[in-house]
Amino acid sequence: MELELKTAKEISETSKKYNLHSWSVQGDLNPKVMSKAEGIYFWDGEGKRYYDMSSQLVNLNIGYGNQKVIKAIQDQAEKLAFASPGYAIDVRSQLAKRVVELAPDNMGKVFFTLGGADANENAIKIAKMMTGRQKIFSRYRSYHGATYGAANLTGEPRRYTCEPGIPGFIKFFDPYVYRAPIDFEREEDATKYYLDQLREQIIYEGRESVAAIVLETITGSNGIIIPPKGYLQGVREICDAFGILMVCDEVMTGWGRTGEWFGINHYNVKPDIITFAKGVSCGYAPIGGVLVSKDIAKHFDDHFLSCGLTYSAHPLGCAAGIATIEYYKEENLLEQSKEKGKLLGEILENLKSEHPCVGDVRYIGLFSAIELVKDKTTKEPLVEYGKDPEKVMKKILGMLVERGFTTYTHENVIIVAPPLIITEEELKEAMTIMDDVLFEVDKMIGATVGQMIG
Amino acid sequence: MELELKTAKEISETSKKYNLHSWSVQGDLNPKVMSKAEGIYFWDGEGKRYYDMSSQLVNLNIGYGNQKVIKAIQDQAEKLAFASPGYAIDVRSQLAKRVVELAPDNMGKVFFTLGGADANENAIKIAKMMTGRQKIFSRYRSYHGATYGAANLTGEPRRYTCEPGIPGFIKFFDPYVYRAPIDFEREEDATKYYLDQLREQIIYEGRESVAAIVLETITGSNGIIIPPKGYLQGVREICDAFGILMVCDEVMTGWGRTGEWFGINHYNVKPDIITFAKGVSCGYAPIGGVLVSKDIAKHFDDHFLSCGLTYSAHPLGCAAGIATIEYYKEENLLEQSKEKGKLLGEILENLKSEHPCVGDVRYIGLFSAIELVKDKTTKEPLVEYGKDPEKVMKKILGMLVERGFTTYTHENVIIVAPPLIITEEELKEAMTIMDDVLFEVDKMIGATVGQMIG
Repeated sequence: MELELKTAKEISETSKKYNLHSWSVQGDLNPKVMSKAEGIYFWDGEGKRYYDMSSQLVNLNIGYGNQKVIKAIQDQAEKLAFASPGYAIDVRSQLAKRVVELAPDNMGKVFFTLGGADANENAIKIAKMMTGRQKIFSRYRSYHGATYGAANLTGEPRRYTCEPGIPGFIKFFDPYVYRAPIDFEREEDATKYYLDQLREQIIYEGRESVAAIVLETITGSNGIIIPPKGYLQGVREICDAFGILMVCDEVMTGWGRTGEWFGINHYNVKPDIITFAKGVSCGYAPIGGVLVSKDIAKHFDDHFLSCGLTYSAHPLGCAAGIATIEYYKEENLLEQSKEKGKLLGEILENLKSEHPCVGDVRYIGLFSAIELVKDKTTKEPLVEYGKDPEKVMKKILGMLVERGFTTYTHENVIIVAPPLIITEEELKEAMTIMDDVLFEVDKMIGATVGQMIG
Repeated sequence: MELELKTAKEISETSKKYNLHSWSVQGDLNPKVMSKAEGIYFWDGEGKRYYDMSSQLVNLNIGYGNQKVIKAIQDQAEKLAFASPGYAIDVRSQLAKRVVELAPDNMGKVFFTLGGADANENAIKIAKMMTGRQKIFSRYRSYHGATYGAANLTGEPRRYTCEPGIPGFIKFFDPYVYRAPIDFEREEDATKYYLDQLREQIIYEGRESVAAIVLETITGSNGIIIPPKGYLQGVREICDAFGILMVCDEVMTGWGRTGEWFGINHYNVKPDIITFAKGVSCGYAPIGGVLVSKDIAKHFDDHFLSCGLTYSAHPLGCAAGIATIEYYKEENLLEQSKEKGKLLGEILENLKSEHPCVGDVRYIGLFSAIELVKDKTTKEPLVEYGKDPEKVMKKILGMLVERGFTTYTHENVIIVAPPLIITEEELKEAMTIMDDVLFEVDKMIGATVGQMIG
């Protein structure tokens, strides 16, 4: 195979000329070249090294260059690179079995997709077929993908291009306690408030017309919003009361990110459907899926499953998935995620106490966010929702990147979600960069500069 | 990597137990094992060999086990298995350049996806953003994918699960001359009839509210419906008259299937957007994309492109795509497709003249269909649309498979679309099996058995 592009400059300029890049004004771009990558690091076209502190798009849990997963892909490519979804092949059967075995014990079968968006698309269809109902509840502070169905689940502005919306897709608010309209005394009070609102909204929409409540177990890009105590149990109870299916989007929270195979494992709740992608193969080869309960699986024994895509359960993705899961186990990455997560939590709490610009920090495992404010007391966000004309957040991201720390931001929030293989030393080093940059943000808001304690 | 499943029986049973299979009643399935594959053949769990006469799902144009593409995937897995879509990497830039260079000369940039459904999803979004309009026209006899947006483009029953439909998605009828309500004297009369209908429908929907007309250049699974002379030019003229974007779905017809890089090349027409997938990498690694005209590309230089997916332009897909395109060129597969297509056309015409059950045959390159009828004169379909309670088509497919010929059927149509690497001898041998089975179908309809002329 011949590549005519040799220099980083050629690669970047050709990309700008011929590739349409996601979520961007194309004229503003000068695409950064990724020339090589290893572990938690990658290097740009000039040989500069970066800590990947978001695991790319929260998918690269095992970091770059994992030889076990690479070999699994190489072997499968040689053995059988493609078989259409109707055929049984060893890796396809094996990955399905492994995934079901690691899921909550009420799960029965898995429908494989290529990523998270199509997993959520198929989850909606399955819920509608299973219940015979048409309405779908999902949350405002959420991202579920950018295809029409997934975008209509999504509550944040990235859905607008897929409007006018699909009839019957209803939104409710996440339990975002930090910015709740009431200053709750106890966590349980917040839970009750949000559940009561949800219940009332369902009743007004018609309790027997709702097929599913779809929610990120822990809200991801929209701010790492961790459900208050009892909230997910309460959603489960509402679903049970009204015959609604509970669908947990675990595209980010699955596969060790939060310290468990699935985020829901923290809460002693069993959803009816779980969607996943990202961490199952860490993106080495694309694969995602929809886990369905035994009850739902049984339903489709004698009902037509109207779902399908050419690359469902692609052999390379299946092989990558099996190897990735083995690697998680061999290296105890769930345990690693929990342990490093504790350290990350301590570092984040220190940042919060030292920096006037840090309004809130939220974290579970290696899944975390820093929420920036103009004023800690009033909680006024550093940038207004959906409006950042002076590109403040872009500037902050630029300062991080300049210092070798890559991640992404969403509204006034910085995501921190490094590969689970990160060492304590690496985590401390990287977060020192964050500390430096937050001092700059403190200056931007004109606050007295705090001091970081060790 | 450890696979605990050793025997074909274990693989099939595990698949039945844990995998949800596309477009099926799961209880009816006994998933066939694909144990190995090479060239145009694959072998099942018992070592029986099959001619793959549909290139799996009309994607495996280069057949199985292509060492060039396998090596490209293996090398890329080692070098860099994943980089998120924002980064420029060599294969990502290179494939974009190659694809744009092979496309009609008005094309400017490409947005890569994973497959055809998400290519069509993004094409709709791009057309809406570009025009500021909301309505989308597409055809009844069509399949564009099974996610919500793609399913709402789709006209056949596989869309029903994605209803109630998205507001503004409008359907019109394909120029299916064989079953037109009028017996046209000349091809041009059919063209005029269908274009007049389309124009009138657009006017009644509001000519300034229509963003795009989306159509398979040549209708694929819904019966290989080849547009009559002047039809696509006429659609182009309607689009120009009303400021509507013409979007050609080339997911099946692209990449040599019809004897050209894109099906549209047969018709001297330049669409505004082309979607593709399948043949670009032949499914060795998943990739698809949306080609946009230079005008559209320019628009997004200063407008936000609200499209994105984690695995857009996945490195393995890009590497596979580059190698696949090189292979097409090295082996002159477009020429092969044309030449073998001529032979296939002759064979199909013979089958039509000899078999009472064959109402029509349609073919272009190695993309063809056999339409089965109860009566050649009345054209009564062998099975009623959307209804086949006695599973007649499943029985016919079973007879083919039993004799070592695999493909798929849609309603009363059998698809024949072998890998472009098929030899004349292999094509003749395989079509002899088809001939045998059609004698059985002749018997089913109680017709006098015809005789095949060698």
